[in-house]
Amino acid sequence: MKLNVYLAGEIHTDWREAVKSACEGLDIEWSGPVTDHGASDDCGVEIFGAEEDKFWHDRKGASLNAIRIRTGIARCDVLVVCFGEKYKQWNAAFDAGYAAALGKPIIVLQPPEHDHALKEVDAAANAVARTPEQVARALRYVTTAAL
Amino acid sequence: MKLNVYLAGEIHTDWREAVKSACEGLDIEWSGPVTDHGASDDCGVEIFGAEEDKFWHDRKGASLNAIRIRTGIARCDVLVVCFGEKYKQWNAAFDAGYAAALGKPIIVLQPPEHDHALKEVDAAANAVARTPEQVARALRYVTTAAL
Amino acid sequence: MKLNVYLAGEIHTDWREAVKSACEGLDIEWSGPVTDHGASDDCGVEIFGAEEDKFWHDRKGASLNAIRIRTGIARCDVLVVCFGEKYKQWNAAFDAGYAAALGKPIIVLQPPEHDHALKEVDAAANAVARTPEQVARALRYVTTAAL
Amino acid sequence: MKLNVYLAGEIHTDWREAVKSACEGLDIEWSGPVTDHGASDDCGVEIFGAEEDKFWHDRKGASLNAIRIRTGIARCDVLVVCFGEKYKQWNAAFDAGYAAALGKPIIVLQPPEHDHALKEVDAAANAVARTPEQVARALRYVTTAAL
Amino acid sequence: MKLNVYLAGEIHTDWREAVKSACEGLDIEWSGPVTDHGASDDCGVEIFGAEEDKFWHDRKGASLNAIRIRTGIARCDVLVVCFGEKYKQWNAAFDAGYAAALGKPIIVLQPPEHDHALKEVDAAANAVARTPEQVARALRYVTTAAL
Amino acid sequence: MKLNVYLAGEIHTDWREAVKSACEGLDIEWSGPVTDHGASDDCGVEIFGAEEDKFWHDRKGASLNAIRIRTGIARCDVLVVCFGEKYKQWNAAFDAGYAAALGKPIIVLQPPEHDHALKEVDAAANAVARTPEQVARALRYVTTAAL
Amino acid sequence: MKLNVYLAGEIHTDWREAVKSACEGLDIEWSGPVTDHGASDDCGVEIFGAEEDKFWHDRKGASLNAIRIRTGIARCDVLVVCFGEKYKQWNAAFDAGYAAALGKPIIVLQPPEHDHALKEVDAAANAVARTPEQVARALRYVTTAAL
Amino acid sequence: MKLNVYLAGEIHTDWREAVKSACEGLDIEWSGPVTDHGASDDCGVEIFGAEEDKFWHDRKGASLNAIRIRTGIARCDVLVVCFGEKYKQWNAAFDAGYAAALGKPIIVLQPPEHDHALKEVDAAANAVARTPEQVARALRYVTTAAL
Repeated sequence: MKLNVYLAGEIHTDWREAVKSACEGLDIEWSGPVTDHGASDDCGVEIFGAEEDKFWHDRKGASLNAIRIRTGIARCDVLVVCFGEKYKQWNAAFDAGYAAALGKPIIVLQPPEHDHALKEVDAAANAVARTPEQVARALRYVTTAAL
Repeated sequence: MKLNVYLAGEIHTDWREAVKSACEGLDIEWSGPVTDHGASDDCGVEIFGAEEDKFWHDRKGASLNAIRIRTGIARCDVLVVCFGEKYKQWNAAFDAGYAAALGKPIIVLQPPEHDHALKEVDAAANAVARTPEQVARALRYVTTAAL
Repeated sequence: MKLNVYLAGEIHTDWREAVKSACEGLDIEWSGPVTDHGASDDCGVEIFGAEEDKFWHDRKGASLNAIRIRTGIARCDVLVVCFGEKYKQWNAAFDAGYAAALGKPIIVLQPPEHDHALKEVDAAANAVARTPEQVARALRYVTTAAL
Repeated sequence: MKLNVYLAGEIHTDWREAVKSACEGLDIEWSGPVTDHGASDDCGVEIFGAEEDKFWHDRKGASLNAIRIRTGIARCDVLVVCFGEKYKQWNAAFDAGYAAALGKPIIVLQPPEHDHALKEVDAAANAVARTPEQVARALRYVTTAAL
Repeated sequence: MKLNVYLAGEIHTDWREAVKSACEGLDIEWSGPVTDHGASDDCGVEIFGAEEDKFWHDRKGASLNAIRIRTGIARCDVLVVCFGEKYKQWNAAFDAGYAAALGKPIIVLQPPEHDHALKEVDAAANAVARTPEQVARALRYVTTAAL
Repeated sequence: MKLNVYLAGEIHTDWREAVKSACEGLDIEWSGPVTDHGASDDCGVEIFGAEEDKFWHDRKGASLNAIRIRTGIARCDVLVVCFGEKYKQWNAAFDAGYAAALGKPIIVLQPPEHDHALKEVDAAANAVARTPEQVARALRYVTTAAL
Repeated sequence: MKLNVYLAGEIHTDWREAVKSACEGLDIEWSGPVTDHGASDDCGVEIFGAEEDKFWHDRKGASLNAIRIRTGIARCDVLVVCFGEKYKQWNAAFDAGYAAALGKPIIVLQPPEHDHALKEVDAAANAVARTPEQVARALRYVTTAAL
Repeated sequence: MKLNVYLAGEIHTDWREAVKSACEGLDIEWSGPVTDHGASDDCGVEIFGAEEDKFWHDRKGASLNAIRIRTGIARCDVLVVCFGEKYKQWNAAFDAGYAAALGKPIIVLQPPEHDHALKEVDAAANAVARTPEQVARALRYVTTAAL
């Protein structure tokens, strides 16, 4: 089974590469947000002009990024969302909620210390993984039907 | 007409192979659940870690399998669901109900002794077949327009 | 919070009355299938004329009952589905699958011995109850926000 | 214009009461999650039985709470989501994402220090308020057409 | 169970009144098209001005009537469609197809001599009745659960 | 037939009052945008704080007004949209397109000199009226079935 | 622009071939029902076994044909429906209604003498053609943007 | 990320070519309306026969063009809509509203003097561009993730 997998959330570690390389050879099309933090923050004003107010600076960027994010989530068969150690990561939870409302299967990748805080997100997910390798094994099983 | 056909239900006989081989040459893309009983039961704990409680052991597996099943049903043009002689087979009926609510055409494959017990499922179906060959003839007719 | 609750499945015990009486005073509108087994089986031929063939006798009844069942499920906020000790109960699993595809929250009421056979249904549910009283407590909590 | 407003997020301050009392007299039906922290955490095991593993303890509660939350969000015309000073609040962001995918208008209530971290959520919202009074004024304007 | 029933099709006999009077006392809200043939044909030009070309005369009327028809079908729980002895009655079949695509349960009322010509419509229906009394009995059974 | 009618477009003449008074006695629930031009323009900054940049001043207002507009259009059975003599009126055309995509029946109220410029909007509508009285007659016919 | 065009209705003349040959070279994928009248009537009993009662003979065939028809209509970008000189052709009108409810653009091909009887169907269509060549010119214009 | 981009609105300048040439090398499939003004106005009567009344002349053309426009918008991932200096351009705003209701991301291309008149359209958009080059940069960023 061919899958389109969207990799949401955390952009400061290499978990995406870890998942992808562990899925080498599988029939998976990958998508995800822009992971260059600077570009992601400044794309709006870079392209459409500077803003005095940081609030609108952020708005322009977030609105532009939403084109890529919403399109990617709408197309995907499975959303994998990673919650890392740092930052608020509300956009990760927002994307998970968005995917859940569209009926997309979700795999959460998160360390055990976040279990309680993520219980609502986890309850909407098909699986909770602790490592990128577990995510990859799950995707391998779903696409190939073999453990 | 090209079709995507999902083969749901019974995983202890070779009815899937019988349907597929009788459809040789047709423009059909096949999908279906994992049919390795052991893998299907244990995939969750194998990948994400053991559970003490059999209830959660089953939950982890069923939730992971649901990714493949839901994706397959959502993509299919026709769902064929087989009810065999043994077991409760509630997942087969569940998949049929799921497909019906999505408006997917359904072909039921079942022996006559189940007719009364399956009357609600059959009433939601486009056809009730007794043999894999009948399923194949129906798919041949739908795709090629020839009897 | 007012709820519309559909009580699906088993029609040979008084579990529906047990749930309802334990929910006395809550703002719940109840719906469900026809629970008179004879009427449910024969309604089609009684109203539209006899059939020689038992298969079509059943079809006429099941198709008519589907009007009530589909309307009830489509309107409900929560589907409670009970699996009992006897019979195949494929219609119960079918209704659960139908509700799941519509995104309806599901509470399953079933004895532990069916846990493994119902694992796919349970994995699509928000709760698995063992007694009508547990179902009622859950509905009370959801509607009143108090345990 | 009558509105159904869902108040999501933060459950440790009295912002819900502040919004409601400032909306006195408006034709608004309010809904929201269970705001009793203890009940919200323990409802699952209280009703359906204890769990050894905290992970499944949380799962049972979160799944049960989801009935109320999903029903409330699906019914609402406007979702107001509050992000407070403390905790991860991923469920608040998850609910906002869920509402956004359903096309529900969103009003975010949050202090300026969270602006950057909430930029994706804010960009999906119709308004960003700093005080419950601003939320109430917005709802008053929407329902009565008068500033 | 309360029902909203749309009575489509034939406007030259009193079958609607026959169904309604036989349903006396049931909790049914009735809707249907304008049944005054002259008004139905001429409403467009009467209100919005005459047309030289009969084709556009008809278009103006049909487009205006569509507001009532589409709204009625979209709201209904069950569509009853009657095919009589005379005329082409393509609008009846069109309404049935429209309702089928929306997933509305359908009861067809038609004489046996039309069985073959209506086989596609009948196959999309939950019941085929021969008399208004049969329609009424079916609606009574669906709403009251009693034969 | 009870109707919910949304009155979109032009806010500088009294066409809404003309339609409503000519519909006196009909079972119609009316909705529409805020028609106080000043309030509509400034609501965002009045409630949430001033903006230096007129672009964001407008954005805050338009986003807040969208809550009322989108809710009203989503609820309505019929959208009446009026194009007057002055201004660009792009929001009127936008609302018509929005309603069309939701499958809402549309009645356009516009003077003949705009016929060519409005041909795409008119082609998506069920009727094109020249006076508020024609709109009212159409609504009277749809709700009462009498010319 | 590539199009998927479903050719519904009349199966006793060669209008489908006329449309297709006049569209030679266009990027169009064609679909449609089984046009072998005998196969279409008897497919159900041929494959799944004979029926004593002509009514169920027809039902089995119509239900099987519905798989191809519904799949074809659901996939198409444009539905062309032809009404000929003979027979009731209720299935043609049913398919048009089904397509209309799905929001599919419709082109009706019909002789002027049916104009009044088809006014509701025509009012739901984007164009009414009198000859297969007109249908082909319209499709050529839509796909190539050139008259 | 591959994108399907629909270019709506203004047909009297070469902005479409400017956007496309600045997107050289990107994985974008372009679509849009017929931009030959004469063909767009007269296609209906050219193909299906002349009309005495200019109103119906326009209707026939607009209805035929709608096949291409609606199909294009329904398929697109992003709608870019350009508002130019001249004409009423209500069809541009209508298309934007139509796309917004389908949840399509929108980029508006418009000169600053239209800011106030377009504030509702802009508020529904992900970005407001002033030049075709800005549109192209935005599409480049969305598809390649690089500024």
